[in-house]
Amino acid sequence: MSEYSRFKVRGYHLDQYGHTNIGAYNTFMEEARWRLFENYNAVEFFSELDLALTLVNSEVNYRRPCSLGDALEVQTKVMRIGTTSCKVQQSIFLDGGNTHVVDAEHTFVLMDKQTLKSCKIEGKAREKLEQLAQVF
Amino acid sequence: MSEYSRFKVRGYHLDQYGHTNIGAYNTFMEEARWRLFENYNAVEFFSELDLALTLVNSEVNYRRPCSLGDALEVQTKVMRIGTTSCKVQQSIFLDGGNTHVVDAEHTFVLMDKQTLKSCKIEGKAREKLEQLAQVF
Amino acid sequence: MSEYSRFKVRGYHLDQYGHTNIGAYNTFMEEARWRLFENYNAVEFFSELDLALTLVNSEVNYRRPCSLGDALEVQTKVMRIGTTSCKVQQSIFLDGGNTHVVDAEHTFVLMDKQTLKSCKIEGKAREKLEQLAQVF
Amino acid sequence: MSEYSRFKVRGYHLDQYGHTNIGAYNTFMEEARWRLFENYNAVEFFSELDLALTLVNSEVNYRRPCSLGDALEVQTKVMRIGTTSCKVQQSIFLDGGNTHVVDAEHTFVLMDKQTLKSCKIEGKAREKLEQLAQVF
Repeated sequence: MSEYSRFKVRGYHLDQYGHTNIGAYNTFMEEARWRLFENYNAVEFFSELDLALTLVNSEVNYRRPCSLGDALEVQTKVMRIGTTSCKVQQSIFLDGGNTHVVDAEHTFVLMDKQTLKSCKIEGKAREKLEQLAQVF
Repeated sequence: MSEYSRFKVRGYHLDQYGHTNIGAYNTFMEEARWRLFENYNAVEFFSELDLALTLVNSEVNYRRPCSLGDALEVQTKVMRIGTTSCKVQQSIFLDGGNTHVVDAEHTFVLMDKQTLKSCKIEGKAREKLEQLAQVF
Repeated sequence: MSEYSRFKVRGYHLDQYGHTNIGAYNTFMEEARWRLFENYNAVEFFSELDLALTLVNSEVNYRRPCSLGDALEVQTKVMRIGTTSCKVQQSIFLDGGNTHVVDAEHTFVLMDKQTLKSCKIEGKAREKLEQLAQVF
Repeated sequence: MSEYSRFKVRGYHLDQYGHTNIGAYNTFMEEARWRLFENYNAVEFFSELDLALTLVNSEVNYRRPCSLGDALEVQTKVMRIGTTSCKVQQSIFLDGGNTHVVDAEHTFVLMDKQTLKSCKIEGKAREKLEQLAQVF
């Protein structure tokens, strides 16, 4: 399904203990969010409205280590859409989906690219995020 | 004071909006933790005990954007030391300390470098962390 | 063909001018090398021999800037295999392959993972690299 | 002397073999270039002229591995200033300066920040680069 992104743990993702480093997990999650948005044409959509989603809060649990060659699946869900912010949940699973490696909840606000200030989530932008939220 | 680390926002830390990117803040905090540990000889100390602190949870608020040339101060505090985990609080301030840019709470467990498993925080390892916690 | 890896330029790859940053190109090339090796089971192969390829020299031309949404193709070629080192050429093209964005030549030596020293490229390791070199 | 920047190898710079990874060396060199420019007010200077130095070529030798706790010194020299490009040499030494870890030569062009095109190195911009080149 489109809301899953797949990544493989490479040598350059590893720390001195042979475990996937924190930066690699964060990059996997960031790339997975971009892929979800791309699948729903949300990148161009927000760009044309001169809006961008900006991260304001992250809560991440690193539940167990991963190793070279591990095949990871990142699941991305657009959740609660509030007046001014929007929650995105992400989970990283080891291949097959039975082993939960990372779970995270990120909060985004909508930034007006002209003023670089946050703004209300309303109108077309709200509809688009609701469309993304109904993927699941 | 030694528990403050200073960083300057460079061109390579910026995103397309001219704002410091999330990866840069995370690197500043990671480097600041290493400097604190180095100042109290904690890196060698844990290494000799064949132990390493491993990040298991991060909660980070990105409160306001920073720009090229901003001088940042990262404050790092070792907080509650539990039976098996330890909390570290970090705040990033704009020069002078009046403007709060980022605040974060990280949870670490102690990993046995031989078994790569977590272990109880006790004995000398506990004393060292308590020494770090009393810096403030 | 398997020797091509595809990447999309995302917001988190951009610098303040809206151009893909140098770190992103380097990561694309590193990932493309891993994918090529994976396609020919070379990762496990060298691992079982307790050998690893280690980068000792890079020459990279950054020929023109890329922007958000650009679809990039990285071509990776294992070239001359010397007594102790091996050249890998990489080119990054804009979708369609007509526009040349980056070209690079990397030199690797073979490292013995037990001693962490470089060693001669001979026997099975040499055969495997020659197999990779004949992909083209 | 101001043209030297100091860095310490941390746990988060290490690969699975306990060696400093390539990305870390590249970041040390990039930060060292920014510090040199800052020391001579060159960041603001070029910014006011609406110009930015842009990397177009890098040649880097990774000569020997570094390990946790190694204290590195990065030496940065502005060299030949041509009509349209400028060479910067960088070397990384292990503390004391006797052991040469990395050497690199980078080529930059001057980019007009309005047009995002490269331009001739002349007038005030040339004088500033010549001033930086005479530091040594």
